[in-house]
Amino acid sequence: MQGRVVIIGGDAAGMSAAAKIRRVQSQREILVCEKTAHTSYSACGIPYLIGGLIDQVDSLVARSPQEFREKYRIDVRTGHEVVEIDPLAQRLRIRLDGNDREIVEPYDQLLIATGARPFCPEVPGMDADGIFGLSTLASGVRVNDYLAKGTPRHAVVVGGGYIGLEMAEALIRRGLEVSLIQKSSEVMDTLDPDMGALVSEALRKVGVQLYLSETFESFEVADQRVKAVVTAKRKLPADVVILGMGVRPNTALAEAAGIELGVKQAIKVDGRMQTSTPNIWAAGDCVATIQRLTGQPVHIALGTIANKQGLVAGTNLSGGQAWFPGVVGTAVSKICKVEVARTGLQERELRDTGIDYAAATVETRTRAGYYPDAGSITVKLLGEKTTGRLLGAQIVGMEGAAKRIDVIATALTAGLTVADMIDLDLSYAPPFSPVWDPVQTAARQLVKAL
Amino acid sequence: MQGRVVIIGGDAAGMSAAAKIRRVQSQREILVCEKTAHTSYSACGIPYLIGGLIDQVDSLVARSPQEFREKYRIDVRTGHEVVEIDPLAQRLRIRLDGNDREIVEPYDQLLIATGARPFCPEVPGMDADGIFGLSTLASGVRVNDYLAKGTPRHAVVVGGGYIGLEMAEALIRRGLEVSLIQKSSEVMDTLDPDMGALVSEALRKVGVQLYLSETFESFEVADQRVKAVVTAKRKLPADVVILGMGVRPNTALAEAAGIELGVKQAIKVDGRMQTSTPNIWAAGDCVATIQRLTGQPVHIALGTIANKQGLVAGTNLSGGQAWFPGVVGTAVSKICKVEVARTGLQERELRDTGIDYAAATVETRTRAGYYPDAGSITVKLLGEKTTGRLLGAQIVGMEGAAKRIDVIATALTAGLTVADMIDLDLSYAPPFSPVWDPVQTAARQLVKAL
Repeated sequence: MQGRVVIIGGDAAGMSAAAKIRRVQSQREILVCEKTAHTSYSACGIPYLIGGLIDQVDSLVARSPQEFREKYRIDVRTGHEVVEIDPLAQRLRIRLDGNDREIVEPYDQLLIATGARPFCPEVPGMDADGIFGLSTLASGVRVNDYLAKGTPRHAVVVGGGYIGLEMAEALIRRGLEVSLIQKSSEVMDTLDPDMGALVSEALRKVGVQLYLSETFESFEVADQRVKAVVTAKRKLPADVVILGMGVRPNTALAEAAGIELGVKQAIKVDGRMQTSTPNIWAAGDCVATIQRLTGQPVHIALGTIANKQGLVAGTNLSGGQAWFPGVVGTAVSKICKVEVARTGLQERELRDTGIDYAAATVETRTRAGYYPDAGSITVKLLGEKTTGRLLGAQIVGMEGAAKRIDVIATALTAGLTVADMIDLDLSYAPPFSPVWDPVQTAARQLVKAL
Repeated sequence: MQGRVVIIGGDAAGMSAAAKIRRVQSQREILVCEKTAHTSYSACGIPYLIGGLIDQVDSLVARSPQEFREKYRIDVRTGHEVVEIDPLAQRLRIRLDGNDREIVEPYDQLLIATGARPFCPEVPGMDADGIFGLSTLASGVRVNDYLAKGTPRHAVVVGGGYIGLEMAEALIRRGLEVSLIQKSSEVMDTLDPDMGALVSEALRKVGVQLYLSETFESFEVADQRVKAVVTAKRKLPADVVILGMGVRPNTALAEAAGIELGVKQAIKVDGRMQTSTPNIWAAGDCVATIQRLTGQPVHIALGTIANKQGLVAGTNLSGGQAWFPGVVGTAVSKICKVEVARTGLQERELRDTGIDYAAATVETRTRAGYYPDAGSITVKLLGEKTTGRLLGAQIVGMEGAAKRIDVIATALTAGLTVADMIDLDLSYAPPFSPVWDPVQTAARQLVKAL
């Protein structure tokens, strides 16, 4: 595959693709249009910047635009916002940051890697100062600056997903009083409620005030600054508000160009990351992917997925053949000392899909019981009754707990049964595990329930 | 299956089987003959006892003989050493500890779970005071007492396998000057030498004096106490010596009874843990198992394997149907802060087996590079050239490194290819991993070399 490649978006998916193309095709013309000033940054690192675990904004940048230009000879242009795709003429209209100028650039192959943005409810006061969604590195810097220059006391986090929780911890670290509003009965509703309850408890322990089963309604604003968050039940004073109500794919540009969208308005792509429109590809947080366990499309915005999809797109764009096979839904987070992980399908999804399942939950230790710092770990496993097939897992526990989810993610991908899990030759030594790894203890329990 | 079950050996395999039988058959007569005073102890915990990380010997005992008698109604008799199996009469001759009395007990089904013992070279002075092998909890207690009552200064560890290394660390913690003699060019020869070199380096850093490519020859003894260890090149002063030269299965009893032995004189069993002799079963460190990747028999003495085999034997002995499918060769250890793990086949085995393979080694970080305490991790992956199949892995690194081996152990069991590894939906968040997990970074590298 030859000709000019243009990539819209210079973060995980976009730059992974660009770098892959350059490795294969040393002379290929590659243009990257990035709206912000940054490339290849870790959006996942923003809570740690705000929480003070990381000093420098720059440390979140894996490779700067300059590095891409000099070392990779990739024409990265920051402050370049693509405002229109013309798929027939194969041209882009691009608005330059800081002035009204627009330019037009042609492409032979186009990769859309426009990412996602935080969901912002349409309520009055939404545009007041002190209300923040987090997506780009720039958005993280804005929060950081806002906290530094004022003397905010009360923070309210709306939504108890990964970003909401990590931000709640970050704000506690910065000395704020933090309230968190969550619509469902426990935080982190990608877990089943029984496991989510363990995370809720961990949050309370570090001082986060939780308002569960409570719906966000509106903001109270004075002098164009947020003053309070109003729920169906109360009014919470707020000097700063973080929106953690999920993300939406940035697909207005693709939609306007007539590119087919799928689940949750994410761009529909095939396994090679090709869209419905010739010579247009898409990857990362703006596309839909496949949950391997159900074969159904899902929209999950995660850096790992974006990187892998970028690599697949880059391989195909440089003449190779690669497919992204989908995901099993793995995610992990850390709330102070408590580690949280999940993969596969949760009970709600299993009920919705009509799968006949059983669940087993065990509480055991991260290390041999007698070894110093053996912490508690709770593992919940789900399996299919008719086939014995493993369906999913959730883990909440102390140091060393969460990464065990990868064993289950691997087993799910390989289609192992719950009984197969018991036979796995997992590693054991007292500093690392009880003699039966917690994952296998859970499998032994679940086999009986199937 | 009914009738009286007798089990020889009351540690991992024996007591796992006993407990399983009791759970299934509440009235079954179960007799356990244990030579020592302890049951169900963690031999793997001995180095931590000696190193002072654990205070109490008792904390290494998962369940005491009394507990088994009272809670499980299992007739556990300590100080009972079986000295002869009569397979025709289905009777055991048993020597009682502390007196010359012998008794005879009949069995309907017999499980041999006699474990393994440290290899002791046949050299003069081997029986001197101050020379220890480690196997039973009693042997650990003897080392502990010996160190406590004297004022030993110089320790020599002979052999750089897991036990040797863990004991070297323990003795350093106790303030001794520790030398370690290893026959091969690097310690831990279950790793390839390039990875073993990283462990050698870690040992030197904590103050262990290494003598590599050096052969143990003999002991120097005075007043029936060890004074020095003699190698082919030098004489090392020694107040205490730990033998870490590997273990041998305890199978003299089985051999004398005409039970078929296999690799390394370990008892040959089928997948159900049945020996060649009717009504006699065997499990744990005294049996041979199958390396799943080659289908060849191997002898590996590890608590995880013993527990699983005990469970399989117990299931079959109580009327169920279970098979032990073999191992992939997973092992893990920690030397001060350095974590070491391996699974699958190493280069030497691949050469011996004639498998056409490629290797890739990457050095990366345990966490996102910018996250506090991101440590280094080196991952070596091996894959088959003709099929792309994953063959093995070795990991050396800081906190969080070693348990990643379980992903590879799972992938090996499932028969995944190296390319499949790249697609795995492994967990990512900055406290846990770079966006590409080190295992996947290694897989990306290896795919190019296949």
